[in-house]
Amino acid sequence: MVRRTVYFVSDLTGVTAEQLGNSLLAQFEGIDIKAVTLPFVDTAEKARKVAEIIDRTAENDGRPPIVFSTLFIPEVRAIVHGSNGVMLDLFDAFLDPLERALGKKSLPTHKRPHDISESRSYNYRIRAMDFALATDDGRNERLYSQAELILLGVSRSGKTPTCLYLALQYGVFAANYPLDDDDLEAEALPGAIAPYRDKLYGLTISPERLRAIRAERRPTGRYSSPQRVAYELRAAEALFRRFGIPYIDATHSSIEEIASTILSETGLERRARTY
Amino acid sequence: MVRRTVYFVSDLTGVTAEQLGNSLLAQFEGIDIKAVTLPFVDTAEKARKVAEIIDRTAENDGRPPIVFSTLFIPEVRAIVHGSNGVMLDLFDAFLDPLERALGKKSLPTHKRPHDISESRSYNYRIRAMDFALATDDGRNERLYSQAELILLGVSRSGKTPTCLYLALQYGVFAANYPLDDDDLEAEALPGAIAPYRDKLYGLTISPERLRAIRAERRPTGRYSSPQRVAYELRAAEALFRRFGIPYIDATHSSIEEIASTILSETGLERRARTY
Repeated sequence: MVRRTVYFVSDLTGVTAEQLGNSLLAQFEGIDIKAVTLPFVDTAEKARKVAEIIDRTAENDGRPPIVFSTLFIPEVRAIVHGSNGVMLDLFDAFLDPLERALGKKSLPTHKRPHDISESRSYNYRIRAMDFALATDDGRNERLYSQAELILLGVSRSGKTPTCLYLALQYGVFAANYPLDDDDLEAEALPGAIAPYRDKLYGLTISPERLRAIRAERRPTGRYSSPQRVAYELRAAEALFRRFGIPYIDATHSSIEEIASTILSETGLERRARTY
Repeated sequence: MVRRTVYFVSDLTGVTAEQLGNSLLAQFEGIDIKAVTLPFVDTAEKARKVAEIIDRTAENDGRPPIVFSTLFIPEVRAIVHGSNGVMLDLFDAFLDPLERALGKKSLPTHKRPHDISESRSYNYRIRAMDFALATDDGRNERLYSQAELILLGVSRSGKTPTCLYLALQYGVFAANYPLDDDDLEAEALPGAIAPYRDKLYGLTISPERLRAIRAERRPTGRYSSPQRVAYELRAAEALFRRFGIPYIDATHSSIEEIASTILSETGLERRARTY
């Protein structure tokens, strides 16, 4: 196993540098990565400290660390890029072609919008998160008229993480409704969700995985018994099919994959966009 | 205002392409962007459909759309990149230099790790999210021994979104404890958190902003009155200072900025990394 030090350096939070770097590093195997994020490097002084850290690591490791950076401030970028790391910078690679494509210069650093917390897109994310929490697990059904999406599924099928991710990442107002015994045995759609047929989306999961997840919470008893779990999932899927509710099997999918699939299939708008 | 169509195209979820593109587009102003995410483009057939969409848009818009892509499958990339968009591809730009730096070839497509839901990093994120929900708003104080971080602040100062973000993005186990009247008037640290001094981190916010946030929930009454809000914030900040608890003013910061600052100041490990 080769050991490599990786830095994510940014004049802002470093989230984009991390995302960029991790996506690329996921394409390699057999490398033991020690990753360090250095955010808010927005002065020449901080840049010099970062350059020193990189140079020291290059010396200690006997090979240059890999540096994923999103450094927009030219002075800062020049200092960091003068160090002994392998520099992979988002703006270096893409800002020129993007300026050409848009026929516009990018904003000078001092004019960059600063206060993200006051942007409309950001406020959607926070409001959507409040909404997801307020309507989690079938609470506050009276708010369903405001939902853009209502996720259905049995207990622990992944509804809550999906709703929270959709809120935090995209500002989507997603509620979730747990299918209980009465719902699974009934002939009709539960009364709380019946008026919102076109907002419904189902989640299912394999019995083995659901059993494992439930056993972590309650190892014994009916809740995590194989028969019970298999029955609930069968009944939930039958309900989805009976009422033409689209659904996704979450067994082998991450929250990101589930969320992306749902948005793509429903055509729901990504109200907010993170960066 | 110039109108431009932007596509985020990926053979996976598109989250990285969105992050990359939005970070870059945030550097420009005066452009009205219509953004569309096209995820899971993982076959030649889907790639041809995407190329058609791009070509049609180029014709309709009278200018080429801008395409941020993370296409790792060579055949898919070749087809999409043959269309009439301005192509900005993450792997095009960085995979070669990264292969050289690592002295290794990236994994062939068919060998890419597929089932993220079974990775350790992913499971940290889900467990951390369960933890944040279980301990939200002072619930289940008995779990504090498992917390890596306990956020303190008055009602609506931003504790919950920060905890959930730390969980979802980084797999950090963060609880939050609301400072109530008794806590603010007491001489000592609240009993529930006193044993965990080195896990504590405070959040504060300007009175104006807190008043606005609280008024959305309850427009009248003491909860959102100027006097009340100012008193609570003054008392909370005094408590942070008295006990040497580090704290951050969240007034002008996004969740990402708050989270990144806390991680950077506490040195807490990012257990999980998204991509």
